Amino acid sequence: MAKVASSMSVSLDGYVTGPNDSREHPLGEGGERLHRWLWGEDHTPADAEVIGEMVGAAGAVVMGRRSYDFCEGDGGWGDGGPVGDTPCFVVTHEPPATASPVFTFVTDGVASAIAKAKAVAGDDGWVGLHGATTAQQALAAGLVDEVQVHLIPVLMGAGVRLFDDIGGKPISLERTRVVETPQATHIRFRVVRD
Amino acid sequence: MAKVASSMSVSLDGYVTGPNDSREHPLGEGGERLHRWLWGEDHTPADAEVIGEMVGAAGAVVMGRRSYDFCEGDGGWGDGGPVGDTPCFVVTHEPPATASPVFTFVTDGVASAIAKAKAVAGDDGWVGLHGATTAQQALAAGLVDEVQVHLIPVLMGAGVRLFDDIGGKPISLERTRVVETPQATHIRFRVVRD
Repeated sequence: MAKVASSMSVSLDGYVTGPNDSREHPLGEGGERLHRWLWGEDHTPADAEVIGEMVGAAGAVVMGRRSYDFCEGDGGWGDGGPVGDTPCFVVTHEPPATASPVFTFVTDGVASAIAKAKAVAGDDGWVGLHGATTAQQALAAGLVDEVQVHLIPVLMGAGVRLFDDIGGKPISLERTRVVETPQATHIRFRVVRD
Repeated sequence: MAKVASSMSVSLDGYVTGPNDSREHPLGEGGERLHRWLWGEDHTPADAEVIGEMVGAAGAVVMGRRSYDFCEGDGGWGDGGPVGDTPCFVVTHEPPATASPVFTFVTDGVASAIAKAKAVAGDDGWVGLHGATTAQQALAAGLVDEVQVHLIPVLMGAGVRLFDDIGGKPISLERTRVVETPQATHIRFRVVRD
């Protein structure tokens, strides 16, 4: 069965965006600081390897409606989703009237979206979780197999917190890898089912 | 001049304690999970080296009143402070009637306490910040030179957040070292003055 992974750039104080994220500024004010390793001035071959691994593994993506609304079309993703034409499942109460065929809208919650994404990703594939809310809901529901953080050397002070609410109960992890690049510390964890 | 460092064990979701910390449970419910590398079942020689470095460097400690109240005396520190007889400066509105001579009570704020601690620590010494609130106040005031986190592979879900409020403005860091031990990822950062 496909596995489910969250992989996010995060400041040392736990933010995945700066303050006031919007369609105009999907990363919030100053939030591009968190993504320079991905596509900006801090990008190195070692970072590219980490990205390639993520993109290569993604058989499907699950995201929330905010991520979709902020980034679809000329918000940044063009005709596709965050990983080109990889199928994306968007958790929403109300699907939009029209959308790129890359997107499937799921109205019965994150567990349903993940189940659909797993079916598409195939037995050896990975489902990538996109956005902090989706990651939190999936963690709280016990549906995540792996968490990767790309830890950026900055304290943002404000923004959207990656692990704001994971259901109030501890979740054990096992660190499986650390990759140090000049501007990011890429740390992978396996979720330990107690 | 002495330098100022914060060094704390923290969960991947940014907590330094479990929920409901008190004098009975200064680490909160389940918070001992964050300190097993320090003195518990996960402790290894490599962890001991990291601890030895911290303890050896500490010429003075600055803490808040909560840390003092929770841990002084038979709360765990006995006749001394968190680093034996290393001088401790406690930020408080009202000093207690009696206390171990290790402690000096400072009623005019964290900057004053840090200045006094630096004077005691000596030119090549380090001032250690103890507790999340003290670390946050010192960071917000631009008084911290180094931040070390001992990242523990667990999502706590609740507790006291290490970087809950650092004044709302970004603070740039530079990663200076990563040490991987079986149950902790010790990451040091230098605070970059912009």
